[in-house]
Amino acid sequence: MEFSSKLLERAVNEMSQLPGIGKRTALRLVLHMLRQPKEHTFALSEALQTMRKDVKFCKSCHNISDVELCEICSNPNRNAHIICVVEDVRDVMAIENTSSFKGLYHVLGGKISPMDGIGPHDLNIESLVGKVKEGKVKELIFALSSTMEGDTTNFYIFKQIQDFQIFTSTIARGISVGDELEYADEITLGRSIINRIPFETSIKL
Amino acid sequence: MEFSSKLLERAVNEMSQLPGIGKRTALRLVLHMLRQPKEHTFALSEALQTMRKDVKFCKSCHNISDVELCEICSNPNRNAHIICVVEDVRDVMAIENTSSFKGLYHVLGGKISPMDGIGPHDLNIESLVGKVKEGKVKELIFALSSTMEGDTTNFYIFKQIQDFQIFTSTIARGISVGDELEYADEITLGRSIINRIPFETSIKL
Ligand SMILES: [Zn+2]
Ligand SMILES: [Zn+2]
Repeated sequence: MEFSSKLLERAVNEMSQLPGIGKRTALRLVLHMLRQPKEHTFALSEALQTMRKDVKFCKSCHNISDVELCEICSNPNRNAHIICVVEDVRDVMAIENTSSFKGLYHVLGGKISPMDGIGPHDLNIESLVGKVKEGKVKELIFALSSTMEGDTTNFYIFKQIQDFQIFTSTIARGISVGDELEYADEITLGRSIINRIPFETSIKL
Repeated sequence: MEFSSKLLERAVNEMSQLPGIGKRTALRLVLHMLRQPKEHTFALSEALQTMRKDVKFCKSCHNISDVELCEICSNPNRNAHIICVVEDVRDVMAIENTSSFKGLYHVLGGKISPMDGIGPHDLNIESLVGKVKEGKVKELIFALSSTMEGDTTNFYIFKQIQDFQIFTSTIARGISVGDELEYADEITLGRSIINRIPFETSIKL
């Protein structure tokens, strides 16, 4: 692709670094910005920069938050004895949308995936095991996507905490095997939390 | 969509202002930025801002340029008597890629579309007619997309310049090189038959 402007080229190249945004799409987006008032682009640019600079992760559950302890963790009406383990922030949003869960979350930040070079120590697993060891957790709900990596991650965590007397469960699979949580409809996702089953049952010990 | 962070929410909202980027896609892109080093987001943010602030349009052809007169217009090896009229910058890039055209361009910035509230005066038509009036243009090639709006725009310009003794042409419409006849749409196939060219021409004797 031959650009008539270095400024245009650089903007397109930066945009096309984003996943799923090819050069053509990036060019289309950037040309759209040029047709809009300058202020739109400045607002976008500023929002991204500020977000990346100032966004925090909750010191307890690792959810994205503007404060040290997120609104969910600091809410006294939530049941701190039940922790729902999820891959990322979108899963928290998806489950919160169903209004079916009143415990707390723990955001792992991904799942164990040797293929992608992601091991247990790249994820927020230690702090989760720490919470269990402190003895305040009565139940862990595994709500990872039902893929090989999700199952591996569940099992890895399960092995670390199985000596502590807590109940572990996984969300019921009303959701098709292989599907991502965030794309599930609210009712299915809500029901799968309510009908969660003991983890031992799910791995057929 | 319930966000746990105002900074995240604002970034997602700004991203989802872009055409074809819904809230879910915007969230996926923003979360990707959070997993990448800060510098990536800062580079993107800066590139967009600088581009929107400093980008210029060539004072002659209206193509995007970093200087007053673009590289094509200021190239003495290009034939300034032939002007190819296009809708936008992407069309210039597409034609330049073919290395088949050595004249100059004129970027209209869109096409006449009453449905979208775009009239002749919203486009760079006056400056094109001005070039013809100056008497330096020998041929205008209309290379707009063959839609109702494209045809309307071609015709509007044609009416403005028909009293000047210049040659006007439109790019040939036909079946793509390598395409099977049976898969071509009727209109394209019909046009390619009506606008057939001498065989000797097609094989470049
Ligand atoms: Zn939290
Ligand atoms: Zn130019």
